[in-house]
Amino acid sequence: MNRLQYEDSIKMALLEDLRYGDLATAAIVRPRQRSKALMTAKQDGVIAGLAVAAAVFEMVDSHIVFNALAEEGAPVCRGDELAQIEGPTASLLNAERTALNYLQRLSGIATCTRQAVELVQGYPAVIVDTRKTTPGLRVLEKYAVRAGGGRNHRFTLSEAAMIKDNHIEAAGGITAAVERVRADVGPTVKIEVEAESLEQVREALAAGADIIMLDNMGLEEMAQAVEFIGGRALTEASGGITLDRLPGIAATGVNFISLGWLTHSAKALDISLNIVE
Amino acid sequence: MNRLQYEDSIKMALLEDLRYGDLATAAIVRPRQRSKALMTAKQDGVIAGLAVAAAVFEMVDSHIVFNALAEEGAPVCRGDELAQIEGPTASLLNAERTALNYLQRLSGIATCTRQAVELVQGYPAVIVDTRKTTPGLRVLEKYAVRAGGGRNHRFTLSEAAMIKDNHIEAAGGITAAVERVRADVGPTVKIEVEAESLEQVREALAAGADIIMLDNMGLEEMAQAVEFIGGRALTEASGGITLDRLPGIAATGVNFISLGWLTHSAKALDISLNIVE
Amino acid sequence: MNRLQYEDSIKMALLEDLRYGDLATAAIVRPRQRSKALMTAKQDGVIAGLAVAAAVFEMVDSHIVFNALAEEGAPVCRGDELAQIEGPTASLLNAERTALNYLQRLSGIATCTRQAVELVQGYPAVIVDTRKTTPGLRVLEKYAVRAGGGRNHRFTLSEAAMIKDNHIEAAGGITAAVERVRADVGPTVKIEVEAESLEQVREALAAGADIIMLDNMGLEEMAQAVEFIGGRALTEASGGITLDRLPGIAATGVNFISLGWLTHSAKALDISLNIVE
Amino acid sequence: MNRLQYEDSIKMALLEDLRYGDLATAAIVRPRQRSKALMTAKQDGVIAGLAVAAAVFEMVDSHIVFNALAEEGAPVCRGDELAQIEGPTASLLNAERTALNYLQRLSGIATCTRQAVELVQGYPAVIVDTRKTTPGLRVLEKYAVRAGGGRNHRFTLSEAAMIKDNHIEAAGGITAAVERVRADVGPTVKIEVEAESLEQVREALAAGADIIMLDNMGLEEMAQAVEFIGGRALTEASGGITLDRLPGIAATGVNFISLGWLTHSAKALDISLNIVE
Amino acid sequence: MNRLQYEDSIKMALLEDLRYGDLATAAIVRPRQRSKALMTAKQDGVIAGLAVAAAVFEMVDSHIVFNALAEEGAPVCRGDELAQIEGPTASLLNAERTALNYLQRLSGIATCTRQAVELVQGYPAVIVDTRKTTPGLRVLEKYAVRAGGGRNHRFTLSEAAMIKDNHIEAAGGITAAVERVRADVGPTVKIEVEAESLEQVREALAAGADIIMLDNMGLEEMAQAVEFIGGRALTEASGGITLDRLPGIAATGVNFISLGWLTHSAKALDISLNIVE
Amino acid sequence: MNRLQYEDSIKMALLEDLRYGDLATAAIVRPRQRSKALMTAKQDGVIAGLAVAAAVFEMVDSHIVFNALAEEGAPVCRGDELAQIEGPTASLLNAERTALNYLQRLSGIATCTRQAVELVQGYPAVIVDTRKTTPGLRVLEKYAVRAGGGRNHRFTLSEAAMIKDNHIEAAGGITAAVERVRADVGPTVKIEVEAESLEQVREALAAGADIIMLDNMGLEEMAQAVEFIGGRALTEASGGITLDRLPGIAATGVNFISLGWLTHSAKALDISLNIVE
Repeated sequence: MNRLQYEDSIKMALLEDLRYGDLATAAIVRPRQRSKALMTAKQDGVIAGLAVAAAVFEMVDSHIVFNALAEEGAPVCRGDELAQIEGPTASLLNAERTALNYLQRLSGIATCTRQAVELVQGYPAVIVDTRKTTPGLRVLEKYAVRAGGGRNHRFTLSEAAMIKDNHIEAAGGITAAVERVRADVGPTVKIEVEAESLEQVREALAAGADIIMLDNMGLEEMAQAVEFIGGRALTEASGGITLDRLPGIAATGVNFISLGWLTHSAKALDISLNIVE
Repeated sequence: MNRLQYEDSIKMALLEDLRYGDLATAAIVRPRQRSKALMTAKQDGVIAGLAVAAAVFEMVDSHIVFNALAEEGAPVCRGDELAQIEGPTASLLNAERTALNYLQRLSGIATCTRQAVELVQGYPAVIVDTRKTTPGLRVLEKYAVRAGGGRNHRFTLSEAAMIKDNHIEAAGGITAAVERVRADVGPTVKIEVEAESLEQVREALAAGADIIMLDNMGLEEMAQAVEFIGGRALTEASGGITLDRLPGIAATGVNFISLGWLTHSAKALDISLNIVE
Repeated sequence: MNRLQYEDSIKMALLEDLRYGDLATAAIVRPRQRSKALMTAKQDGVIAGLAVAAAVFEMVDSHIVFNALAEEGAPVCRGDELAQIEGPTASLLNAERTALNYLQRLSGIATCTRQAVELVQGYPAVIVDTRKTTPGLRVLEKYAVRAGGGRNHRFTLSEAAMIKDNHIEAAGGITAAVERVRADVGPTVKIEVEAESLEQVREALAAGADIIMLDNMGLEEMAQAVEFIGGRALTEASGGITLDRLPGIAATGVNFISLGWLTHSAKALDISLNIVE
Repeated sequence: MNRLQYEDSIKMALLEDLRYGDLATAAIVRPRQRSKALMTAKQDGVIAGLAVAAAVFEMVDSHIVFNALAEEGAPVCRGDELAQIEGPTASLLNAERTALNYLQRLSGIATCTRQAVELVQGYPAVIVDTRKTTPGLRVLEKYAVRAGGGRNHRFTLSEAAMIKDNHIEAAGGITAAVERVRADVGPTVKIEVEAESLEQVREALAAGADIIMLDNMGLEEMAQAVEFIGGRALTEASGGITLDRLPGIAATGVNFISLGWLTHSAKALDISLNIVE
Repeated sequence: MNRLQYEDSIKMALLEDLRYGDLATAAIVRPRQRSKALMTAKQDGVIAGLAVAAAVFEMVDSHIVFNALAEEGAPVCRGDELAQIEGPTASLLNAERTALNYLQRLSGIATCTRQAVELVQGYPAVIVDTRKTTPGLRVLEKYAVRAGGGRNHRFTLSEAAMIKDNHIEAAGGITAAVERVRADVGPTVKIEVEAESLEQVREALAAGADIIMLDNMGLEEMAQAVEFIGGRALTEASGGITLDRLPGIAATGVNFISLGWLTHSAKALDISLNIVE
Repeated sequence: MNRLQYEDSIKMALLEDLRYGDLATAAIVRPRQRSKALMTAKQDGVIAGLAVAAAVFEMVDSHIVFNALAEEGAPVCRGDELAQIEGPTASLLNAERTALNYLQRLSGIATCTRQAVELVQGYPAVIVDTRKTTPGLRVLEKYAVRAGGGRNHRFTLSEAAMIKDNHIEAAGGITAAVERVRADVGPTVKIEVEAESLEQVREALAAGADIIMLDNMGLEEMAQAVEFIGGRALTEASGGITLDRLPGIAATGVNFISLGWLTHSAKALDISLNIVE
């Protein structure tokens, strides 16, 4: 990621907190006082967002030096040091909460993603995210999914055309819907069709869908669909898929499994910042 | 809330999705086509954010009419209809994901908060949030906590001065820290001191703290602290407090219990939008 | 397009002109004076951007009524009336230049595109644009291409992965480059490879490219490439293609022809606004 | 120009392209890889916007070093090297298109302007631009006109009061219009009157206009107008003036010739960026 | 003024106050409660900014109806009702302070300006403002000067070229400075020269300055300068001019008198808002 | 203050002036020319805003070096040098007016505040500001009050709940109003009640108000109120308090005296910038 992609988000977040200053710190900390602080994992997990946290500190005060001690996407254990941060004490305290708010959320998503990825290991299935991201944080949350070992489904409504039931109905059928889209878009756009039955899978395939989403299907039906498609289109399992169902779904041979909860319901990873000297 | 407080967030979220348009909808849906849609709860929970969801639809297309069928902060059951939305089909589809992303997240927070609130019912303790909010969404997430029956701890670093261990150390003690803040701030600022021991509680009280945070204390120590303070300052329990520990903590008689996970780790409430005609 | 996609652009453009007001109009026009104005084509061409022009007037004054008299994407002849605009005279004069600046530019692009589209009629080739758009106006200019009968190549660097010579070199070859991308991206991303020779075409096809760009090829080489590919990948002709070369290129059977000058060098279509009463 | 005047434009343009990253580059280019690139003119022309292009690279990555090899406003020939750029390869590729989009457009305008300027050489006439600029780029396009040897007509509606036919009609005549403006504005505002006939020229001059625009006049009428005015006001030729008509118009002795197509219809100058090592 | 010119300012001002809501009002006022309020002058003065105040209320709640009872630029006496405002009580209270902050400041400037204007009545001198405006409020403060009966000196550094001592020194003299500017700017730009002595006045006039600023001159010298210039350039008195010196300065015959304190040191006009039912 | 808190304000202010450049400076000053300038007080006063002025110069040109020669909040005498600024001459001239506009206003506020503070010396009373600040500049103006020796009343409507007459009426009495707020807000919010009579003071105290505002009271009544309250709540004198009334009010023993005119009617402190070499 390039910092341009998220620096407006950081600025807004800092001003949510600091618009009128940090009263306690301003009253107590001497202007020249400097400190060293450590960020430490308080839970096992996967780290994502160290560059974002670094940018938070840097935007508060360019005299802060942030040294990452962990690697993006690497597993960490409770107690592992994640970063050492050195600079004016007041600035460290001003930035602390915002930096942690980003790092904990992104690491939470990466941790969730890694869990899912590990459950499908050995299968060809790839874990992907959805557009069910936190308003304003899509670019960061989708990055965290990648850091956790997943990949990204489309970022926006303008990449790839996903044909859902409402589109199918409006067009009067899958075939017509695919045709209308195909006649409208440029060469780089893939067409994905949401199929809820084998019948729809067949129609989608015949219509030339690039990706067929197997939506809310049982394992058996999904396996039949994957077999029927036989590599003529990519397959994506979707719809209320919980961790425990992942291995079974992967075993059907689907190419991709999309999980909304990676981004909308991941718990934050517990991380602390302590001033050490 | 006034829409001014969150409309920039909505605009940004919509443009995350729609910057270059909605390919499938543009290709398929006829310009004049109109539809009626229903938002339905797919889980039991507490609803928060219907006005925000309404604003999402309204910002996409002022011809959409959004009728809330549930009340903010009210408990809903799986299957309950939450809102009926009517308007141009294309606009409904353009706005759908963003509206749901807000509503699911805010309702998730309200649901979590309600759970916590119910566990302390019968005690004087009030559930409050923290500054551990999602970057960019603080005003909305703190609203969701209120909708769930909680109240808000400070919004920013400029309301109330929270004296933490780093401040205490920088000042050379609680007494000095409180004095420095008191000499710096205006009449409306309360001073809260984080105390990790009874000794610190005593010093904070003597120094004139308005609120004493009982940080990461065991139940017994907390009870002693509350008793010692005896109403001379407000008390706030904080630090890694899980649902199961809530009744015990409330029983100590603390005035407030602050929970970071209300905002950083609430699961989204599952809500669907279906076009019904 | 949804107005959210371009209203910030309009606001900025209006303030480029009106930041400190319109001196002549403020001094001369009486507050209550109302007028009717006509927009008229002063050249033959294709119209695009009437909704944008309407939004300009509406943002200056919500009391202006804008009635389009032409259709988006329709051919117009010199002298055709394009829109009737009625409202407070001062507001009409405030908005006039900005509205025309958008409409002339977008119609210029649509006109250029239509010319190109007509030259390849009868062939399967589809005219597409590039990312060589005016800074700040990409969404509008790509819309104008569609209005002119073309289609859109990717909007951003995050849709579709275009592997260019620099990428090929960095990866150590087309095959490696395609593999690296394939291993990194989600299901919705197509991979396009820029090929400058038949050799590269062969490698790209073998590597599984979804689209092969035939870059700066002569007609004969291009025809060979298209034949060799035989529908196993989409083909795109690109590189300094002028109007007169279009039919020849289309005759090679390529699927898409991308033209940078549609957006970077289209002449504005001449359009006037006259107050008629 | 100061970078403050255009850096928001650059940021917006970069995010049009890079909002969600550069997929191909991210997948292929190694993080530490560095390259050197050359910008080269592929056509003869006049260069404008090297500082803007430099700012684009710098905003993507402050580690990029941009060395201009040409001078702003200088004529260049096909094949001339314009700039050498060195830095992280990925950053170079991220910024390339946006930097070129600015440089090509601004150089196109400067090239057009230079052509016009050369055609009136030997006459007192000065080539000036109009407010017919691309929405969002006025400051840059007017800069490019200066770089090409032209000068700027007013930037906004709040500098100088241009009295057009609609104003004349609303005021009930040129004299009344000039008086109303004169009574309203401060000392720094010049008044320009659009005159379409010698009659109007006379009235404008009598009313004390500072500048008289000779709008859409034939050569003879224009010459008579200039002679009649005799230096008592500045004269400006305007209205559909093409390159071939420029020398004739200049020969009438007008002070200024304004050309809308400098900014609304200039072709981009062809410039390439190649990585050389 | 058009609301586009100041609505971003209002939004920012409202969010300075309301970012996280209005606690007292939210807790106490019932959602459906409506009120009528009156704005009343508590001092004699001149009113400016009613449309701005109206926009503040309207941006907080489009259901508020604001009826101005006074006219812009009209003198009001203590006790005069300025506006009646009706709508949801909570919204009235949310907007009250911000609306008054604008109206009091702008009316204070208009009041100051009117005082100055009245002191030079009978003389040709016109009162004008400067660029010494409050950061962020230039357009509004310059409007208030007009409402008070003054006129506007240049809005920005890009209208009119003001040649000050530093420019004169850099150019090596007034003549050279004027020449350099004249050779650089378009037809609409006036050139003003700051002259501190009769000698400089003579040089400026000879160089062809459009406006000569008589800077910090005594009355006698100023009268001599005006006489010497004899209408061949506009004259502007400037530099530490207090109210009591105004008539004397006007008597010298200068065309314009510029006063920085109109905008940088005007006292706010006292205005109250009371809910009446 | 952290620069994040005000840099958007500076950017906006600079663009108010420089959007299209500085014509005179661009025409005259040579690109490489460097100068040294001095800021000097032209009146006695208190300085506030040197860091803001420094940021203005730095944002125009990072090559400018700004050395403060005075200290924030320190008294200065006419003729004292406040800062030495060195850098490219053109950049100094571009930034000069904006830097002075901030520094003069903030120093004006600090000077006013200091006067008030000195008049209450020897009494416990603390001078505080109000929300009657200039739209867009609240954070800076409240900072200037602190620099002048005052303290800040609440920054926004979301810190502390101020119960005014309208709230009292809406709630049906002070007691009910305080109760409703207390039941709604978190631990950090103080409740202040506006009391206009001893009767209201009694009710506010009984209701548990944290702060009681003695609004527009005569000295005797105020003294009685303070005595009655006897330290059981903080007291704040407010309402049309002029400089000459300050000592008398302070003598009543109130804790805080709030003065709206510190921010809405302070005269700018006269400060000049001269290029010295």
